[in-house]
Amino acid sequence: MKNFKWPVRVYYEDTDAGGVVYYANYLKFYERARTERLRALGFGQDQLRQDTGLVFVVRSVQVDYLRPALLDDELLVSAEVGDLRRASVEFVQEITRDKSKAEPELLSRAVVRIVALDIETFTPRTIPDEIRERITDDS
Amino acid sequence: MKNFKWPVRVYYEDTDAGGVVYYANYLKFYERARTERLRALGFGQDQLRQDTGLVFVVRSVQVDYLRPALLDDELLVSAEVGDLRRASVEFVQEITRDKSKAEPELLSRAVVRIVALDIETFTPRTIPDEIRERITDDS
Amino acid sequence: MKNFKWPVRVYYEDTDAGGVVYYANYLKFYERARTERLRALGFGQDQLRQDTGLVFVVRSVQVDYLRPALLDDELLVSAEVGDLRRASVEFVQEITRDKSKAEPELLSRAVVRIVALDIETFTPRTIPDEIRERITDDS
Amino acid sequence: MKNFKWPVRVYYEDTDAGGVVYYANYLKFYERARTERLRALGFGQDQLRQDTGLVFVVRSVQVDYLRPALLDDELLVSAEVGDLRRASVEFVQEITRDKSKAEPELLSRAVVRIVALDIETFTPRTIPDEIRERITDDS
Repeated sequence: MKNFKWPVRVYYEDTDAGGVVYYANYLKFYERARTERLRALGFGQDQLRQDTGLVFVVRSVQVDYLRPALLDDELLVSAEVGDLRRASVEFVQEITRDKSKAEPELLSRAVVRIVALDIETFTPRTIPDEIRERITDDS
Repeated sequence: MKNFKWPVRVYYEDTDAGGVVYYANYLKFYERARTERLRALGFGQDQLRQDTGLVFVVRSVQVDYLRPALLDDELLVSAEVGDLRRASVEFVQEITRDKSKAEPELLSRAVVRIVALDIETFTPRTIPDEIRERITDDS
Repeated sequence: MKNFKWPVRVYYEDTDAGGVVYYANYLKFYERARTERLRALGFGQDQLRQDTGLVFVVRSVQVDYLRPALLDDELLVSAEVGDLRRASVEFVQEITRDKSKAEPELLSRAVVRIVALDIETFTPRTIPDEIRERITDDS
Repeated sequence: MKNFKWPVRVYYEDTDAGGVVYYANYLKFYERARTERLRALGFGQDQLRQDTGLVFVVRSVQVDYLRPALLDDELLVSAEVGDLRRASVEFVQEITRDKSKAEPELLSRAVVRIVALDIETFTPRTIPDEIRERITDDS
């Protein structure tokens, strides 16, 4: 799954009066890709919460906006695992626009740090080995 | 509170590539006005849920879009109580744009039916007398 | 295309603190299905605007919320053409949840009236015959 | 205006199924504060675009999420001007929750770089002196 990419189509709901995708909405696209990557590894987040009382929350994001995404665009969103720590994992992500013949255009880049929390105490929790291994093997 | 109106400013987040407020976002504005009207009557929805296990959910909406709202517009949103039944209440609402001198322009109209549910069973529940009375006295 | 259905996956972005899909966000799902149905008929809305100066805007919606959609749900959204007039067209739509073995559950129903406007004057315009015919043939 | 703070109330529309404000929606709150700060300085963004063909777009954001904001919370959002360059300006922002008696709680911090673009060419443009001076005098 080295080259995991999640396709996203741009609808009116995503755009703003500037004619481009609203800057907060890129975070939705980035999250869809992370969710689908985890799902592909066999982890539904809802399932995880019910089974183990573990939730993943975003601790920080860093986003560069290089070129605007437009209405009707077909985007591809990546979700590579970067730095993996005891209770947190970093995703390195990109959004590109696919132009049939040409090189894909890079529109945005992001680094997103996710932390594993106990749903009761809301304190950081060690990421279970099973998840850690599957993430490591996969990346 | 016959003339309750909640002010809403339009930001980029509310608009779409058509240059106007996105049609789903009017529902956010309508809900803010209902929430603030209930708050003015002394009911926080979060409080209500914790104290009585009662939640209000939307059963149906009917919205007319007459004129588009634009970026930077200052809108006023009303929230009048219409038909009040055992376990549900109807809000009749309008969004107007305030133009200093002239008549306010009517942009949208909505009828929203809210039903009271038990948070455990998710079945309809009689609206408590205290709430019913305050709503009736007020309208 | 009698049985056109557009698949929608529910993400965190779509839900609210009640644990269900936020009521305004169903309108996003309904619009994605209408857009994809028109695209399947060969009409990109952006293209249409550039080529003919025609835009489709929502004039009214009527939505019933029957059962809540939940995080991670896989939904199907229909977009049938109903009443077709000179300058407007009505879509009759449903959102169902697909449960592998069982009957699909009906979560929401909507009737959405779309009107064709001239992008310059913002007045209603006759829907071009080509579009009318393709819509009629298809439904 | 050293201590400019824009109040934001949290509604259902802002929250997600985790019971907290959805991570992308903090960017909406941050933008409302920047817009209102510029408005307080006498600049409507729509006006600016029409008068001078200048638009401000976000080039990058860096957001830390420290504590979750909750339904019904009353937040305060700051928008201090940091590094000011020829064609870009950095805002240093915070979101705090006001707890009547106690110290305000810091929920989130952000650094947002905005760049001035020509609306026709979409290339960077020198920020006009008048704007630069008002921003500098004010901070």
